[in-house]
Amino acid sequence: MDKVNLVQKLGLFDEPWTPKIIGALNGQHVKLAKLKGEFLWHSHADEDELFLVLEGALTILMRDREVHLEPGEMFIVMKGVEHKPVANEGASVLLFEPVQTKHAGGASTERAVHHQEWI
Amino acid sequence: MDKVNLVQKLGLFDEPWTPKIIGALNGQHVKLAKLKGEFLWHSHADEDELFLVLEGALTILMRDREVHLEPGEMFIVMKGVEHKPVANEGASVLLFEPVQTKHAGGASTERAVHHQEWI
Repeated sequence: MDKVNLVQKLGLFDEPWTPKIIGALNGQHVKLAKLKGEFLWHSHADEDELFLVLEGALTILMRDREVHLEPGEMFIVMKGVEHKPVANEGASVLLFEPVQTKHAGGASTERAVHHQEWI
Repeated sequence: MDKVNLVQKLGLFDEPWTPKIIGALNGQHVKLAKLKGEFLWHSHADEDELFLVLEGALTILMRDREVHLEPGEMFIVMKGVEHKPVANEGASVLLFEPVQTKHAGGASTERAVHHQEWI
């Protein structure tokens, strides 16, 4: 693979809540996503998920607390933990999660992107 | 776990070539390291390794090419690929690699940090 410039890759798409794959290693994917507004409550039964905010701000709601992330801040949602990402003003994030991770966990929703593409 | 602020964590140590663990998920560790000068040639037989430059500049020498990384740029060294990180002016990097990854691969060297600590 070649090196990846995060800013250049972020310039290749605009649609929120459609993660794009930018790298793969050890059975994991590195992704970029743009977030705007609210996603839905969901959890991943078997996968931990890392969020690193690159631009904007992201609040991750959980049932017992919430975490607010600014650029340069990261948080890991452990497997099984229900969470709802909220980015009212918009955010760009780097995600790290296993290859088999489903976008919205087990939730049946039109908002789940089943075939995530490489950019 | 709580959220992690990368700049705050980078302020907790200065010694180069001593990766610090800042997160764990799916059998992988997220680490921060400061690099200054040259490391040694090594490879990891079974682990791919991601470098994301946060500050400074890093050149990764490989036997058949080299990659130069500035802040916001990342590169994945695939398992088995010999590489030598060089950061003459210094760099701070985020690393992503399996928990069992050895610092200098199989190389026998005093520079390998065997017990990497959490910060």
